[in-house]
Amino acid sequence: MTEPRTPVADLARGAVDPARGAADPAAAIQRARDGDARALGRLLSLVENGAPQLRAVMKALAPLTGHARLLGLTGSPGVGKSTLTGALVAAYRKQGLRVGVLAIDPTSPFTGGALLGDRVRMQEHATDQGVFIRSMASRGHLGGLSGATPQAVRVLDAAGFDVVLIETVGVGQAEVEIAGMADSTMVIVAPGLGDAIQAAKAGILEIGDVFVVNKSDKPGAHEAVRDLRGMIAMGRHGKGEWKPPIVSTTAAAGEGTDDLMSKLDEHRAWLGRSGEGERRRRARAREEISAIALAEMRARMGGLPGDERIDGLARRVAAGELDPYAAADELIAGT
Amino acid sequence: MTEPRTPVADLARGAVDPARGAADPAAAIQRARDGDARALGRLLSLVENGAPQLRAVMKALAPLTGHARLLGLTGSPGVGKSTLTGALVAAYRKQGLRVGVLAIDPTSPFTGGALLGDRVRMQEHATDQGVFIRSMASRGHLGGLSGATPQAVRVLDAAGFDVVLIETVGVGQAEVEIAGMADSTMVIVAPGLGDAIQAAKAGILEIGDVFVVNKSDKPGAHEAVRDLRGMIAMGRHGKGEWKPPIVSTTAAAGEGTDDLMSKLDEHRAWLGRSGEGERRRRARAREEISAIALAEMRARMGGLPGDERIDGLARRVAAGELDPYAAADELIAGT
Repeated sequence: MTEPRTPVADLARGAVDPARGAADPAAAIQRARDGDARALGRLLSLVENGAPQLRAVMKALAPLTGHARLLGLTGSPGVGKSTLTGALVAAYRKQGLRVGVLAIDPTSPFTGGALLGDRVRMQEHATDQGVFIRSMASRGHLGGLSGATPQAVRVLDAAGFDVVLIETVGVGQAEVEIAGMADSTMVIVAPGLGDAIQAAKAGILEIGDVFVVNKSDKPGAHEAVRDLRGMIAMGRHGKGEWKPPIVSTTAAAGEGTDDLMSKLDEHRAWLGRSGEGERRRRARAREEISAIALAEMRARMGGLPGDERIDGLARRVAAGELDPYAAADELIAGT
Repeated sequence: MTEPRTPVADLARGAVDPARGAADPAAAIQRARDGDARALGRLLSLVENGAPQLRAVMKALAPLTGHARLLGLTGSPGVGKSTLTGALVAAYRKQGLRVGVLAIDPTSPFTGGALLGDRVRMQEHATDQGVFIRSMASRGHLGGLSGATPQAVRVLDAAGFDVVLIETVGVGQAEVEIAGMADSTMVIVAPGLGDAIQAAKAGILEIGDVFVVNKSDKPGAHEAVRDLRGMIAMGRHGKGEWKPPIVSTTAAAGEGTDDLMSKLDEHRAWLGRSGEGERRRRARAREEISAIALAEMRARMGGLPGDERIDGLARRVAAGELDPYAAADELIAGT
């Protein structure tokens, strides 16, 4: 045990043994709360792998949750999400807050250090006990981002992190899913990446609570801000509604982070004032419950080959004797 | 009604009215079987939108399915999937077969002509009644590729297409999902795209029934073939098992298509001989039934805000009074 026990070292080491960590859920959680990155890593592996102990862990976690501030970052590849994440981590650390980072790659079916390359940029925080960084490329045992991510957030929340940054590569549907998981979602664009703005036009517009034009020292930054402003204006925000601000940053030089944080604070205040914060928290819980219930139902109805009932129905559907809707009805009736 | 009624024109015109088409499901299906691209387009829109008539349509379709040969094509962007698809369409047309193409973009949440740019290359088939091309960028009403795609395939099958080509952009999990939907899956790589081979290494290897090195006139083609061969050899294919062949093509020049088709024929023969074809058909039906049943359950358990029961549970989970697993148990118990 002479090797360094830092978050990045744990990450580099790959998945930890999920069977350890949770022999006594309460003890594992206490260790994670005390800053033991390895205990925390094991709890997160439980979430990814859906080990049997997960239930007991989630039960023990529940009363400890609800304190962390959940911030989402999303944007196309190349806009500088990781750098911006790093800048926010540093800034919140200066305030003495403990910061957890979940970096989610929804396009990869693989778990563990998939995004390790990106994470290397964050090595400045590697020896800081108040920072924990985890890459989750897996869709998790519930078979969807909507299952694994909120549970991982739940673990970090219960482990006492004051801020949890959820960073996602912006690809289609996935980022919309992820957006629902944060209190405040930042949509990051960069000048010259026309497609980022295109994407924003098409669907990201609704999910951004704060828009960030990063790399604002690059040509085209003004145009990007102008385009975003025009699009936001089209949204016609009424009195008392939140009108997403646009912040210009150059995260690599540490510029604009303070401004971004103050906009995030304003959004937080609005969340509290308007009741939207509580509404989002409940919506998240609803999604989480629903994902777990569906996974459980799927298990009960026997989606796996070898289950006699669904196999019989599948045989008839494959033979054209039965349509899949009628088969589904029969399956549900027998559950 | 003087405008040209070709598949591509239908596609360019955007989504058709899903409410028409299925007033009389049997009649709509008959029109589609007679080569009416517009009727077919409407049936596919039902699948995408999950209109209420879908059940009746699927019931009427069931006895007509099971004839089409389902061929999947997947690979990273830039490997030439569309060109290869076009070459296969032309070749099967020469044999007098009717060919349907489903081009799926799993990264886009948007429906309709998202891939239209790509499709332009296939305009040579635009006026051919024996060819139907449809882009599906939507995840469909069942909330997943696994729901919409098999049903679209089912429609084309019932409409009398002899060959259905399912083309997917290779991105992570989605292509693995899609692979399960074809009888034979081609994994396409191109020389010089190191990441394609990386991807193949990481997970595509299991899903390829036939590997295609396209753009084989480019430097690096031999190395790509060699790398693939090495990886396939590691798979240790036993007697009677299918060992995926590697075909070199230059689809843009029409080279290698005959060789590819003969490998696909060999794979088809093996599917029949080994029983694997029937096994795959049943596995597909199982997945389809299960996706529909889960969507139905989700509807019943009220995933939407406003549903009193799940709202009450979500409130308690958000407040930390209840863990999400216990909440899911309560939800299921009351369904």
